Amino acid sequence: MVKISLDVMGGDFGPEVVIPGAAKALERHPEITFVLFGQRDKCEALLANYPKLKEKSVFHECDVAIGMDEKPSQALRRGRNVSTMWRSIAAVKTGDADVAVSAGNTGALMAMAKFCLRMMPNVERPAIAGIWPTLKGESIVLDIGATIGADAKQLLDFAVMGGAMARALFEIERPTIGLLNVGVEEIKGQEDVREAGRLLREANIDSLNYYGFVEGDDLGKGTVDVVVTEGFTGNIALKAAEGTAKQIAAYLRAAMSRSLLSRIGYIFAKGAFDALREKMDPRKVNGGVFLGLNGIVIKSHGGTDAEGFAAAIEVGYDMVRNGLTQKIENDLKLYHALLPSSAGPEAA
Amino acid sequence: MVKISLDVMGGDFGPEVVIPGAAKALERHPEITFVLFGQRDKCEALLANYPKLKEKSVFHECDVAIGMDEKPSQALRRGRNVSTMWRSIAAVKTGDADVAVSAGNTGALMAMAKFCLRMMPNVERPAIAGIWPTLKGESIVLDIGATIGADAKQLLDFAVMGGAMARALFEIERPTIGLLNVGVEEIKGQEDVREAGRLLREANIDSLNYYGFVEGDDLGKGTVDVVVTEGFTGNIALKAAEGTAKQIAAYLRAAMSRSLLSRIGYIFAKGAFDALREKMDPRKVNGGVFLGLNGIVIKSHGGTDAEGFAAAIEVGYDMVRNGLTQKIENDLKLYHALLPSSAGPEAA
Repeated sequence: MVKISLDVMGGDFGPEVVIPGAAKALERHPEITFVLFGQRDKCEALLANYPKLKEKSVFHECDVAIGMDEKPSQALRRGRNVSTMWRSIAAVKTGDADVAVSAGNTGALMAMAKFCLRMMPNVERPAIAGIWPTLKGESIVLDIGATIGADAKQLLDFAVMGGAMARALFEIERPTIGLLNVGVEEIKGQEDVREAGRLLREANIDSLNYYGFVEGDDLGKGTVDVVVTEGFTGNIALKAAEGTAKQIAAYLRAAMSRSLLSRIGYIFAKGAFDALREKMDPRKVNGGVFLGLNGIVIKSHGGTDAEGFAAAIEVGYDMVRNGLTQKIENDLKLYHALLPSSAGPEAA
Repeated sequence: MVKISLDVMGGDFGPEVVIPGAAKALERHPEITFVLFGQRDKCEALLANYPKLKEKSVFHECDVAIGMDEKPSQALRRGRNVSTMWRSIAAVKTGDADVAVSAGNTGALMAMAKFCLRMMPNVERPAIAGIWPTLKGESIVLDIGATIGADAKQLLDFAVMGGAMARALFEIERPTIGLLNVGVEEIKGQEDVREAGRLLREANIDSLNYYGFVEGDDLGKGTVDVVVTEGFTGNIALKAAEGTAKQIAAYLRAAMSRSLLSRIGYIFAKGAFDALREKMDPRKVNGGVFLGLNGIVIKSHGGTDAEGFAAAIEVGYDMVRNGLTQKIENDLKLYHALLPSSAGPEAA
């Protein structure tokens, strides 16, 4: 049994997406039970449409729903202890749930998760790990927006946490880890990336296979299982790639409708285009995982639909089933034992 | 007349690409004259195939060609005064050329350009500006790899220089400028980006229309004419986008060859696919412009073909015709007059 708490009011569409999404995930994984936090008047009628989900859920009425535009500090002030977002996270703390999933706003969710669950021992800053579709399958990329400007020690923590997540999600024993860098040699700056590389190479721990530096185009190639960077660059790389995918999709649509011949061609090749669309479907890789906290929180894209929200739930489900938190704790302990002094921020 | 100096030995293919590339550019712009720096035995026979180019060129024999893998410091030691790369840059300094174009290695080219041409007064660090294809047309993105970790003052300089380049290249009077940032509010770090935003807003100079922050997905949308960031993030965003484009092209090829129907569809829609390929052709936007130096140097992609090298030459040609260096100098002067104290690095 895997217990999942849901912030039913989170996201652009709230219960309209969260409830059918949960129903879809339950259909595929009947061993899930849900703890739902929502506003009863907005959920009750919807929930009645999904009797199986209703049966496998406990519903908790909450007064406050956090808005998508609320600032983290405001959300924390207004929503601590009483909001659907806070309470879905708190359920992980009390053990009522194994993982929390929310499509609510990232800043507020991270602020509440940090405040409620606290950082793991030995971890200074949290990371958000995303799943990046590649030519070889999928990679994990972190941080995609939680920690701006990480130092060498923090990058190391990200490498260890991302490695543990790869082991949990992809079920590989010794995932390859790359540090995102630029190719030009002998340039100033980013001493932290180089220092992190040196430390990773020296530590040489069993659960990680340190590959070296990777560049921006290695992301799509799937050169390594885990790409580590700080949150500013990671967030911009992710959005630049998403933007490029949308841009090419727009070019492709325009090209296919430009003449009668191309429209006929489109009809013949419709199966191929459907396969391509499936391959590029952003819903399939929906779900950013907050790492470094005492408990797992999954951030779903705010604008996703029921299928996308179900995918985010399933990321959480996989993480729990494969013991992510325990894996991270073990790896961090191992790592810090190997690098007692040099991994300190003083060394950076 | 526009005088362009070429590092004929630069790039993965050297004269095999540079000479036919120059011939193509000359065909389209007969008012160009070339100053060629190469190794005679590797160029003479090739050049004989292009009598028009030969007629409009002066050839200078050089002893040294810089390798694609040479470190900047080594290239500088070995190639100063005597290499094709150095001498093509030096021709800009002496006035024998208006702009230099090289497909040689970026690190060496930047090191030589800085050493030979020196930084413009009031500019601390150079930038490489790239041309980014967008849904609306093209944008300028800088820095894509010269300056890692720019501070607020340096980001300002990049904004002014990128704005001048947009005026020269796109022939618009008041280009819009965006600072690349992440969307999450109230997060630590990147004070420099915020400080640069504040200064740009306050200065409000005539030649720039400061738009505000933009995110990674605004690059492909073409939200602004000029996107400003430091070189680490800019380089990774560029390569992440290029990688995504290649990834999708691979998906598309696989999808189109998966069944008889899709192959038939492909034949019908071939014109559309050709248009798409044309749209995504990386050769069309080949040419990174080194900004901040006393003279213009264009870096062509090392692996490009003659068409791509011709495009890089044409970027240089446009820059010269539209008085890029003068525009940058004027704008910088104007800008520094408006922000006499607060633009200093102390303020960042």
